[in-house]
Amino acid sequence: TSAVGKNATGLVAATFTPLTSKGEINLAEIGPYVDYLLEQQGVKSIFVNGTTGEGMSLTVEERKLLAAEWCNKAKYKMDNVIVHVGCLSLKDSQELARHAGEIGADGIAVISPSFFKPATADALKQFLQEVAAVAPAVPFYYYHIPAVTGVHLQSRDVLEGIEALIPSFRGLKFSGSDLMDFGQCVSYSPPHWSLLYGMDEQLIGALAMGANGAVGSTYNYLGSRVNKLMSAFNEGDLPMARTIQFQVQDILCYAMDLGFDLAVNKQLMSVVSGLVLGPPRLPLLLCPLPKANSIAQRLQQVLGVQ
Amino acid sequence: TSAVGKNATGLVAATFTPLTSKGEINLAEIGPYVDYLLEQQGVKSIFVNGTTGEGMSLTVEERKLLAAEWCNKAKYKMDNVIVHVGCLSLKDSQELARHAGEIGADGIAVISPSFFKPATADALKQFLQEVAAVAPAVPFYYYHIPAVTGVHLQSRDVLEGIEALIPSFRGLKFSGSDLMDFGQCVSYSPPHWSLLYGMDEQLIGALAMGANGAVGSTYNYLGSRVNKLMSAFNEGDLPMARTIQFQVQDILCYAMDLGFDLAVNKQLMSVVSGLVLGPPRLPLLLCPLPKANSIAQRLQQVLGVQ
Amino acid sequence: TSAVGKNATGLVAATFTPLTSKGEINLAEIGPYVDYLLEQQGVKSIFVNGTTGEGMSLTVEERKLLAAEWCNKAKYKMDNVIVHVGCLSLKDSQELARHAGEIGADGIAVISPSFFKPATADALKQFLQEVAAVAPAVPFYYYHIPAVTGVHLQSRDVLEGIEALIPSFRGLKFSGSDLMDFGQCVSYSPPHWSLLYGMDEQLIGALAMGANGAVGSTYNYLGSRVNKLMSAFNEGDLPMARTIQFQVQDILCYAMDLGFDLAVNKQLMSVVSGLVLGPPRLPLLLCPLPKANSIAQRLQQVLGVQ
Amino acid sequence: TSAVGKNATGLVAATFTPLTSKGEINLAEIGPYVDYLLEQQGVKSIFVNGTTGEGMSLTVEERKLLAAEWCNKAKYKMDNVIVHVGCLSLKDSQELARHAGEIGADGIAVISPSFFKPATADALKQFLQEVAAVAPAVPFYYYHIPAVTGVHLQSRDVLEGIEALIPSFRGLKFSGSDLMDFGQCVSYSPPHWSLLYGMDEQLIGALAMGANGAVGSTYNYLGSRVNKLMSAFNEGDLPMARTIQFQVQDILCYAMDLGFDLAVNKQLMSVVSGLVLGPPRLPLLLCPLPKANSIAQRLQQVLGVQ
Repeated sequence: TSAVGKNATGLVAATFTPLTSKGEINLAEIGPYVDYLLEQQGVKSIFVNGTTGEGMSLTVEERKLLAAEWCNKAKYKMDNVIVHVGCLSLKDSQELARHAGEIGADGIAVISPSFFKPATADALKQFLQEVAAVAPAVPFYYYHIPAVTGVHLQSRDVLEGIEALIPSFRGLKFSGSDLMDFGQCVSYSPPHWSLLYGMDEQLIGALAMGANGAVGSTYNYLGSRVNKLMSAFNEGDLPMARTIQFQVQDILCYAMDLGFDLAVNKQLMSVVSGLVLGPPRLPLLLCPLPKANSIAQRLQQVLGVQ
Repeated sequence: TSAVGKNATGLVAATFTPLTSKGEINLAEIGPYVDYLLEQQGVKSIFVNGTTGEGMSLTVEERKLLAAEWCNKAKYKMDNVIVHVGCLSLKDSQELARHAGEIGADGIAVISPSFFKPATADALKQFLQEVAAVAPAVPFYYYHIPAVTGVHLQSRDVLEGIEALIPSFRGLKFSGSDLMDFGQCVSYSPPHWSLLYGMDEQLIGALAMGANGAVGSTYNYLGSRVNKLMSAFNEGDLPMARTIQFQVQDILCYAMDLGFDLAVNKQLMSVVSGLVLGPPRLPLLLCPLPKANSIAQRLQQVLGVQ
Repeated sequence: TSAVGKNATGLVAATFTPLTSKGEINLAEIGPYVDYLLEQQGVKSIFVNGTTGEGMSLTVEERKLLAAEWCNKAKYKMDNVIVHVGCLSLKDSQELARHAGEIGADGIAVISPSFFKPATADALKQFLQEVAAVAPAVPFYYYHIPAVTGVHLQSRDVLEGIEALIPSFRGLKFSGSDLMDFGQCVSYSPPHWSLLYGMDEQLIGALAMGANGAVGSTYNYLGSRVNKLMSAFNEGDLPMARTIQFQVQDILCYAMDLGFDLAVNKQLMSVVSGLVLGPPRLPLLLCPLPKANSIAQRLQQVLGVQ
Repeated sequence: TSAVGKNATGLVAATFTPLTSKGEINLAEIGPYVDYLLEQQGVKSIFVNGTTGEGMSLTVEERKLLAAEWCNKAKYKMDNVIVHVGCLSLKDSQELARHAGEIGADGIAVISPSFFKPATADALKQFLQEVAAVAPAVPFYYYHIPAVTGVHLQSRDVLEGIEALIPSFRGLKFSGSDLMDFGQCVSYSPPHWSLLYGMDEQLIGALAMGANGAVGSTYNYLGSRVNKLMSAFNEGDLPMARTIQFQVQDILCYAMDLGFDLAVNKQLMSVVSGLVLGPPRLPLLLCPLPKANSIAQRLQQVLGVQ
């Protein structure tokens, strides 16, 4: 495998960012958060400051403080801390990438800029390359999430020849439903890359296509159950894997019918975990507690937890 | 199982409609077409007058003549002939449904009207019910293809309580990439329904989610190979299934890079099969032969056929 | 001007199709409808069997009967009866075009096929040409409505060189918000073409850009008021034109907040006019009467009608 | 009128951001740029660090330096310098708003955050309010550009009751084609608000609807001509206004056929003005010079400039 770092595999929780009730970052909750994931969910890798972490709503300075604390608290405990460093501004991304290297992150990930959208895969690769170049020793992941960014370039085209541009390239977080594109990425990838799938509600489809891991927000509170899905799948017990997948879907469908966005998701995690994650930041609005409670109840019914 | 008919499972070819060089329907090519599918592709079920068959570009009268000939030639040879009877006009759909019953079709399928789009799943179910009611003895399938119709209602919502409205309801052709919706349909379905998946390029994702069959245009010329994919999947040989899936994707990616639409697809089938399918009907334009030849060549390279 | 017919200018009402309570076409209501438009709204031209007329939900036979009756009742009374003959099937469109010529329609209009979408302006022009060719003596209009058809070809590209293909070409019904495309059509058009604008809520924008008429559903019940808008605009009294435009917008905003689709629109017309237009056809669902009444009330408040 | 500042009316150039060949901000070019707009284009107001200015690709620090220099150079010369301070992060926006107040900007404008999209007009208004609150003495403009942000909230809903939340509210930059929404904004606005339209290619449509100014990138190089359009419109000479509008459209259509994005636009401005604006920042790629030259030639042909 490559000279840089270890590979991300298995379940990776995309963490929420704890805020105080006044909306400031709350570093004190990060230690307990790491322990919760390890002890209650059996989740050993995290993806921080990403979409779930409201990374784009934070300042560069806040993202640095958060990344440092996640790395600090996860050290010697977790397998992988991947720090998302994508920004609209290349310069900001570079600053965060440099910092991630300094604090010993296990990997960095970059989303496509979405205000100005790269016109071609080459334009996007140039952007990614400029970010990766300032942290050449840190494993680099491209983060594909077209429904959010509005950037509909094929991931397969982004991967084409990318190691020549980014020697530290190590894989893909693919949060899209186009499994042909995902499959072609799998087919093209050398063994030392990680193909991480990001739509929790259809994970087994991606596992069938060859995913070797998953990054998602629901693994914050469903990690333990989805670990069983992955084991079942790996042991060839498809009916069991499917049963768990349908449970995940049931919970998400229930939530969607009530109106499910990142704010609700964050509140749900607070309710399920007991962690104090606080409100989201504007333009997201705080989810009313009864809604989160109702989803949490459904979750417990479906999982059969007392 | 239900009182009406046998279930559609396995591979179903969505057939092209043979036209003469002048653009008239060419019934004479249907017999050889049926034999080609059976003998060369091992495909024993067909879905006629659907999207691939340019059903929406044909008159009601033409669709009747074609449906009758497909049923006639497939009789005693094939397992299932499903006739697509969806139209923008409810009355036209009813006329075709009635006719399909008279000619002994094994099933009828109805797509959502797409010019006026049903505002809710209930509106769509009323439309489907009115069609099904005139052919109550014919197994009924709902055909979901949101990227073409622009109707983004969840299939799961369409299935809710549908047997009460349509006692002959027997399943779903799901041509979408939203595998959560598909999974929830699988989870909700009684055993006598068929869950047929319609995006050939990501079939194994849907098989993992519980599909019990597939309908697609590529099975006209890739049926033999995809039958092996399904066998491998059923035997738990996921690596083999995946290898074949990647071959299908490779061919489709190659075609898409050249510009791939139904007209190209039809011409490709003529080249691969030797059948004389003729031009498409306007607003589709005849595909230049070299383009179809080039894709056919890629297909043969990928499949390793001499 | 051209050898074929007279030009459509001014206000054109896109008529609803009267149905009986059982959903059959109701020819008996057409005579009173024509008189209502003339006498109560001062509208002297109609566009029949179009989007507002649920043309796509009718059978070919029904469309013929309706077109014949509209032409019959409007004869010697109205300036222009334009019959929409667009269908998904070229053959059906041709049959309707031929028939429109036989019954003495003042013009025919064709929408782009929307299930299979023409890939280029040339493909669309071939389709239009094949329809126009069977009724060469009838003034021909292209009907552009991208939000409904999903066909986003520029109208300006469709107009390019179209008279060479369709000698009877006489203009455009442009139902889109892209006023650059519309402006470029105006700029390209010879004087004997009509540029009819189809988004009633922003008509004065199109008048400023050079429209010489308007086709819309609201002119069924707001024709009298919008005739004043057009007069004011033509006399250079922009503040008055704007005041009326804002009234139209106010009514439509109010309706949209309640949920406004063609079914509601049709019911609203019944309430305002006293005509018995009946229900819409599936997949549209009958609008609850209180909703239509509420919009009608707002309309009367805004217009200051007793 | 309001206690805060003067109103923006007439033409406002959305300025490009000068960069050095190495991609650093180039403050030295700002003085000549201001003089060019005043002397060659007759444009007396500017909108800086907006979409055209690649504001979202700049760091907070860069945006401050640029804003300060634009204000400095435009002081005593121009009527209005509006500084765009919108960011994905509320905190960054607040920092820029505070700074804009300190440097004496004539106004600030805020775009909707577009990565996380406000779910309702209220959520967006809360975001805007939090920004405005830190610079209460600076006239505040909401910047609506749905095709770029993907935020499709009606501007009219954003305006509802906004002065109670933002006493410094002074108007709207509306860069959308929905003239009903724009018209309803005009209709709702008190006289001391400015309704600035942002789609240069269809300005006269918005003028008819009641716009009292325009902000756009093309006014950097077409300001002189479009000033004549506005004069003609105001004097009731619609044919002349329309002629100029068609010229603008012709140039833009020509550019679009060649592929027109912000990078091309910036290069075009360098060619036309002789200013040295440098490359765009990634993910935009430098436009090849021949393309910009070709568009500049067309521009000169259309305008009849020697």
